[in-house]
Amino acid sequence: MQISVTRTTAPKAKTPDNELGFGRVFSDHMFLMDWNIDKGWYDPRIVPFGDFSLSPSCAVFHYGAEVFEGLKAYRTVTGEIRLFRPDKNFERLVNSAERVSLPAPDPADAVEALRALVDIDRDWVPHSEGTSLYVRPFIIATDVNLGVHGTKNALFAIILSPSGSYYKEGINPVKIMIETEDVRTVRGGTGYAKCGGNYAASTRAGDKASKMGFSQVLWLDGVERKYIEEVGSMNVMFKLGDTVVTPKLTGSVLPGITRMSIVELLKDRGVKVEERLFSVDELVAAAASGELKEAWGTGTAAVVSPIGELAYDGKEYIVNGGNIGELTQSLYDELTAIQWGKVEDKKGWTVKV
Amino acid sequence: MQISVTRTTAPKAKTPDNELGFGRVFSDHMFLMDWNIDKGWYDPRIVPFGDFSLSPSCAVFHYGAEVFEGLKAYRTVTGEIRLFRPDKNFERLVNSAERVSLPAPDPADAVEALRALVDIDRDWVPHSEGTSLYVRPFIIATDVNLGVHGTKNALFAIILSPSGSYYKEGINPVKIMIETEDVRTVRGGTGYAKCGGNYAASTRAGDKASKMGFSQVLWLDGVERKYIEEVGSMNVMFKLGDTVVTPKLTGSVLPGITRMSIVELLKDRGVKVEERLFSVDELVAAAASGELKEAWGTGTAAVVSPIGELAYDGKEYIVNGGNIGELTQSLYDELTAIQWGKVEDKKGWTVKV
Repeated sequence: MQISVTRTTAPKAKTPDNELGFGRVFSDHMFLMDWNIDKGWYDPRIVPFGDFSLSPSCAVFHYGAEVFEGLKAYRTVTGEIRLFRPDKNFERLVNSAERVSLPAPDPADAVEALRALVDIDRDWVPHSEGTSLYVRPFIIATDVNLGVHGTKNALFAIILSPSGSYYKEGINPVKIMIETEDVRTVRGGTGYAKCGGNYAASTRAGDKASKMGFSQVLWLDGVERKYIEEVGSMNVMFKLGDTVVTPKLTGSVLPGITRMSIVELLKDRGVKVEERLFSVDELVAAAASGELKEAWGTGTAAVVSPIGELAYDGKEYIVNGGNIGELTQSLYDELTAIQWGKVEDKKGWTVKV
Repeated sequence: MQISVTRTTAPKAKTPDNELGFGRVFSDHMFLMDWNIDKGWYDPRIVPFGDFSLSPSCAVFHYGAEVFEGLKAYRTVTGEIRLFRPDKNFERLVNSAERVSLPAPDPADAVEALRALVDIDRDWVPHSEGTSLYVRPFIIATDVNLGVHGTKNALFAIILSPSGSYYKEGINPVKIMIETEDVRTVRGGTGYAKCGGNYAASTRAGDKASKMGFSQVLWLDGVERKYIEEVGSMNVMFKLGDTVVTPKLTGSVLPGITRMSIVELLKDRGVKVEERLFSVDELVAAAASGELKEAWGTGTAAVVSPIGELAYDGKEYIVNGGNIGELTQSLYDELTAIQWGKVEDKKGWTVKV
């Protein structure tokens, strides 16, 4: 792939690390590549970060024709810049795109594009502990007519956002509301795809939970309204006795890269992991009996996010006294040590830029 | 509402009526109005039709934060321009927006904006029999950060597309494939909302059906995969004996304005209408026994679209010998006569521009 590069003539001032927040600041450049049903992917290019100019009739504004990914580049303790499992993200992007009839670039090409982009904007990877360069690849349909079927034109983009530490004030367990009205997705739907519609379906409940003092919503399956699927935009895991239980990938659960990595780390330790249907009744019974020892979410943004409280059906269940559990903490430490290069990456999960 | 008007200085040439197609040509102007969580709706304006300039980080490109409507302006036989039930569309837009945490304009303001816009572009309403000016109002989130929750900025837009006759080659019954793999939406989800995600979830099955020679997909419910919901982007009705059966609005079915209008016309005639759960098993049994007399879709684009064949589980069922039924034809004639001003609008459904 021959990537053309047009460098910015007006580099932006960098925001101090402690003012970054999440997804609000963008680097100087972005990667773009167009697709046409006859030509395939063409014109891979790195250009100055700037607005898209699109017709109001563009399919992405009407028919939710959009898929995305989220991953991070880290500045390691040895001063290198490393990406975490980018191949897995771009493989998932292919699956997401297929579900909503969008094209997707070859994962190897996408990794190459990302490495080239991060290399050019390497000064944008923040330096402070816990910070990272959040990477947002996405694909949108760019057809400029209102007919519903058949994407004929699309755009693949990667933008970079230096982001602050997720745990600036320490790792505090979050309060989760188990949602019983809104449904995020259903078997046969788009749940396993990282597509816009899943997020649109989730925002109302998320906003409601937020107003009630909860950090995230825990989603139940759309068929029986019974089985736990995921929490907010993270996968979720529970330690019951000595076993870790996590919802199995039924098709309506996002196959998280962090989820996959944590499951592997747990198995390496010899911890029993059950990927299975797990009902909310079983969860609250385990919480009430004390069998539920720890609970946490996994995702790119937080890596591991301890859950301190669950609210369901008017009742509240405290997990591990509202504190981060020993296993949760050790998983966070182990995975972030690999990401930040504090230990040797024996897994080959990180890719140097 | 004080709408500012900036007229185009470069009016476009009009496409001949017989080359219009659907949703491909746009008029000279568009209506725009911004929203901010603190300011509310502001700056209502009619401006030359042109590209949106939006940051790649805009929420609409990532989180499916978009809802829309579709309705038509007709040039009546008496030379007036009339809109069909625009109040109903803008009421539905409010409900759609609420589901995905977007703001929506007051329906009365939206109708006023639409009338002003169509008035300015009245020469764009095509003249030939069967043609119309398709109206596409939509709302998108314009927040320029990658955080998922809480829309703080949005844009309401109306664009106009002169469109050709849907039945240029006469009203030909369509072949419908009953989809058994993909699910469009589910109870508790976004099915009743006209939001992008529903369409993204539908395109793969639509493309598959199209390749197999079918015009549309018939959707089954997401819970039991059994009850008929809608067909493609239309509602669906069946004449069984002397009764018309149509799926009831369970929350996962779009509450169509054409559906609502046809049900009212049927009831005015004294035809028994059942809005109820209607299973695919009941449908194919009725088709096999001959009890199924007619079937048709209802929607803004086609108004009434006769169904000539249904495919399910490897079997094909011909409806009414593959021909348009008497009731289907008469409903099409009655409703389009009102829309095109061929008869007096006793219902008060049309609004003069």
